[in-house]
Amino acid sequence: MTSNSDDYLSEIKWNKDGLVAAIAQDHKSGQVLMQAWMNRQALQLTIAEQQAVYWSRSRQTLWRKGETSGHRQKLHELRLDCDGDAVLLSVEQLGGIACHTGRKSCFYKRFSAGNWAEVDPILKDPQQIYK
Amino acid sequence: MTSNSDDYLSEIKWNKDGLVAAIAQDHKSGQVLMQAWMNRQALQLTIAEQQAVYWSRSRQTLWRKGETSGHRQKLHELRLDCDGDAVLLSVEQLGGIACHTGRKSCFYKRFSAGNWAEVDPILKDPQQIYK
Repeated sequence: MTSNSDDYLSEIKWNKDGLVAAIAQDHKSGQVLMQAWMNRQALQLTIAEQQAVYWSRSRQTLWRKGETSGHRQKLHELRLDCDGDAVLLSVEQLGGIACHTGRKSCFYKRFSAGNWAEVDPILKDPQQIYK
Repeated sequence: MTSNSDDYLSEIKWNKDGLVAAIAQDHKSGQVLMQAWMNRQALQLTIAEQQAVYWSRSRQTLWRKGETSGHRQKLHELRLDCDGDAVLLSVEQLGGIACHTGRKSCFYKRFSAGNWAEVDPILKDPQQIYK
């Protein structure tokens, strides 16, 4: 998949930091895996490479999801929302683990009785993921 | 559901505008419906009322989703992500329409051949929704 122009980038309402919110969802189960950010280059690379590339706000660098862990996100579909400030990636999560804690999804804390309870299992020790 | 303290609010990494990203997902289909923002009060009200309450950045006011359209979002589950900067709401979307354009989901534009294509149907004329 290639684009002949970058017109699609101008439809996005980039925030003052030049970023757009990006949500990754499992293409089969629909489970929401994570929420991160993309700048223009990250979105272009995501499309060009057909895998999720984010912008790391903490490290201020492009972040090819899974570049260290191998837990890449293969792109199946990319969507933009009505007001252009969020994109939704339908992905195949390689390794079945999106979260740096070794869990499938980053949304593993459920609100219950006034607190956030960790309800999802760690599938792999992070020390084994990032060795 | 009530909370005895507001400790759960301090686990959230509020951005410099005092907001956290909020993603709403259909509790049955898993379809991602929209992405919006909450401030502390919006999150407290979401929990207290068991329906989605966002913070409208454009109007700078609390926004009870569906207050005009009737398309409220009944809360089924609330989750927080690993780094505390996004919450995920599993909701029952009343009326089956989350988007102000009359579509089920706000993510109705799919990237295809270099452009965003509107691929989802309008279920109800917005003029009939916001009359």
